[in-house]
Amino acid sequence: MIKTDILIIGAGPTGLFAVFEAGLLKLKCHLIDALPQAGGQCSEIYPKKPIYDIPGFPEVLAGDLVDNLMEQIKPFQPGFTLGERAETIKKLTDGSFVVTTNKGTEHHAPIVAIAGGLGSFEPRKPLLENLAKFEDNGVAYMIKDPEVYRDKKVVIAGGGDSALDWSIFLANVASEVTLVHRRNEFRGALDSVEKVQELKNQGKINLVTPGEIIGLNGINSLESVLIRKTTDAKEDITLAVDAFIPLFGLSPKLGPIGDWGLEIEKNAIKVDTFDYQTNIPGIYAIGDVNTYPGKLKLILCGFHEATLMCQSAFQKIFPDKKYVMKYTTVGGVSGFDGSKKEAPKAVVKAIE
Amino acid sequence: MIKTDILIIGAGPTGLFAVFEAGLLKLKCHLIDALPQAGGQCSEIYPKKPIYDIPGFPEVLAGDLVDNLMEQIKPFQPGFTLGERAETIKKLTDGSFVVTTNKGTEHHAPIVAIAGGLGSFEPRKPLLENLAKFEDNGVAYMIKDPEVYRDKKVVIAGGGDSALDWSIFLANVASEVTLVHRRNEFRGALDSVEKVQELKNQGKINLVTPGEIIGLNGINSLESVLIRKTTDAKEDITLAVDAFIPLFGLSPKLGPIGDWGLEIEKNAIKVDTFDYQTNIPGIYAIGDVNTYPGKLKLILCGFHEATLMCQSAFQKIFPDKKYVMKYTTVGGVSGFDGSKKEAPKAVVKAIE
Ligand SMILES: Cc1cc2nc3c(=O)[nH]c(=O)nc-3n(C[C@H](O)[C@H](O)[C@H](O)COP(=O)(O)OP(=O)(O)OC[C@H]3O[C@@H](n4cnc5c(N)ncnc54)[C@H](O)[C@@H]3O)c2cc1C
Ligand SMILES: Cc1cc2nc3c(=O)[nH]c(=O)nc-3n(C[C@H](O)[C@H](O)[C@H](O)COP(=O)(O)OP(=O)(O)OC[C@H]3O[C@@H](n4cnc5c(N)ncnc54)[C@H](O)[C@@H]3O)c2cc1C
Repeated sequence: MIKTDILIIGAGPTGLFAVFEAGLLKLKCHLIDALPQAGGQCSEIYPKKPIYDIPGFPEVLAGDLVDNLMEQIKPFQPGFTLGERAETIKKLTDGSFVVTTNKGTEHHAPIVAIAGGLGSFEPRKPLLENLAKFEDNGVAYMIKDPEVYRDKKVVIAGGGDSALDWSIFLANVASEVTLVHRRNEFRGALDSVEKVQELKNQGKINLVTPGEIIGLNGINSLESVLIRKTTDAKEDITLAVDAFIPLFGLSPKLGPIGDWGLEIEKNAIKVDTFDYQTNIPGIYAIGDVNTYPGKLKLILCGFHEATLMCQSAFQKIFPDKKYVMKYTTVGGVSGFDGSKKEAPKAVVKAIE
Repeated sequence: MIKTDILIIGAGPTGLFAVFEAGLLKLKCHLIDALPQAGGQCSEIYPKKPIYDIPGFPEVLAGDLVDNLMEQIKPFQPGFTLGERAETIKKLTDGSFVVTTNKGTEHHAPIVAIAGGLGSFEPRKPLLENLAKFEDNGVAYMIKDPEVYRDKKVVIAGGGDSALDWSIFLANVASEVTLVHRRNEFRGALDSVEKVQELKNQGKINLVTPGEIIGLNGINSLESVLIRKTTDAKEDITLAVDAFIPLFGLSPKLGPIGDWGLEIEKNAIKVDTFDYQTNIPGIYAIGDVNTYPGKLKLILCGFHEATLMCQSAFQKIFPDKKYVMKYTTVGGVSGFDGSKKEAPKAVVKAIE
């Protein structure tokens, strides 16, 4: 059982920054995210796009913002359970919570902060009869560790950035990459489209367009896929593969959290702006996932909410301690790893 | 009369960022600040110190944060009335406001946002009989434009960073710089103290320590100061000078805003967290100057408050328009100067 002070569900920008604010209060955090990487929407949907309204950054790529946040929270050594969805919550008699994921991983904490954004990112799946049989058995909707595909035969389906970018990446890892898309046209960053064109010309990516995967075969694990060249049904091809990766996008679903007894309004969790606590004491909701009068789904608002939430969490965990806020400039940052950042001290010195 | 959409009182980080959020909504801003420069506490008190809790910046110097904010708001061409204190406010029959400064400058706007921090920064003054006579007539407590002192004889009093830094700066501008301090020891950044020592050794700064200015003389404007070497009253020196600059620090005072009929609690203005509006419709209070349950006097909180405030201001100015928030990543930033920043567009392109 993983134990921590604040269990954060969702490792988007809001959840990540909460680790920092908690750390200043000497509280430890652990994050659960359904995605294989941290960063939420920023990493999953638009890592290479610029954001212009992060205060102090005239322009910052979403992916760089996430990298900066990871760097900022490093001293506070957060734990991560990635690629798993928080599924159930149980309140223990002492008021603390146990949150269990879809893979059975258990987490125990006195405070739960839901920073779930628009919800847990769930893949859009193709409609194929025996798809479930091959899930985690040749079929994957996200790539956690590309090394799994080293020297394997891989077929990727999709026409957007993910399909393009992973085809490019795996061209140097897998023994064979086939990219199948319903249309001739791909939609993505110009340089990704051009790179795939180049790899195709070099014979490093096989392209089937327009095309569609219409069948999966294999005894225990996936052995081959049936591809229909959508121009002509008579041209169906059977392709021997080790892996099929449909990348049709991820769509966020509030999912199981919707059944935790929290007050929901417009698909978001109602909170009080005093401390962003929900109707269940000890459970907070911060960032895109919450709602209150005036709410804006912006990254900078999530930062503020995370900060106020941590103050309240501290009071709950230590009801008898009086916390006196210290500016970081004055008090510095003392990492759990023993690191210490602090402003250079003024000297008191005579001039002769 | 200066006219704008949102008149912002206080050009600290909160007021500055409000310009950006207003700009996204196509609202123009004008800022008033008692200080000669933008940046509030960050610029005035700790420009060279690192802040660690600005989200996305593992570390940023306060002065650099202000520079970044100035860069970020540049497309929205804010106006500035610097070195003047907002003194009185008048509500016109159409509900708009006229704010007048201590120097008589008038500003007219439908919306007033008070981002006054801990208050207007007011200099601590030495106790000298005829001080008022020479104010703006040889005596200055802040340096707006150092060129005023070109080839002049200047005496600076003080023992902190401001006194050290301005002595260093003016050593290359003024014809004569004398630095007077009550003690032998200065308190400041090590490199500033060392630099003053060096300039003193080179004869570019005259140092009088321990010493104190005890008299001012002149017919119309300042002509000389009387300096007491505090070790011995018999050694009083008369020094011919064009300017006397006592730099004993600035202390913030809520000041005249305290009499505007706003609800005040703990020396701060009470607001509603829905939109950070005060008890007077059309007047908002954001950043350190406001208070509400859970309030933290942090820069990142001011950013959030400024953002929600602008949405509400927009609705007040355009009661009939429905504003649909657009992410900057999606909608870009269209400056009032004709500039346009936007994310590179995805292409739709066939791969052959
Ligand atoms: C194209 C685009 C452009 C944008 N541009 C801007 C912009 O310019 N400025 C701006 O401020 N905002 C912008 N946004 C919005 C911004 O990305 C969001 O406000 C921000 O990501 C919200 O952060 P968050 O941490 O609250 O949630 P998210 O980033 O959504 O992260 C939530 C995370 O929680 C996880 N999660 C949810 N439920 C569970 C569960 N049960 N178990 C495990 N994990 C779970 C999800 O998988 C996800 O990773 C943009 C969004 C998009 C899509
Ligand atoms: C040493 C120190 C270290 C700090 N460290 C941190 C930190 O690490 N992290 C953090 O988040 N915060 C920190 N802070 C606090 C932070 O600086 C403030 O929260 C922030 O400056 C508030 O911004 P603001 O724009 O609301 O107000 P301010 O920065 O106070 O600016 C308000 C401005 O309004 C002007 N003003 C007020 N009234 C009037 C008037 N009537 N007419 C004209 N002008 C007026 C003032 O002159 C001032 O320039 C620190 C503060 C200090 C002093």
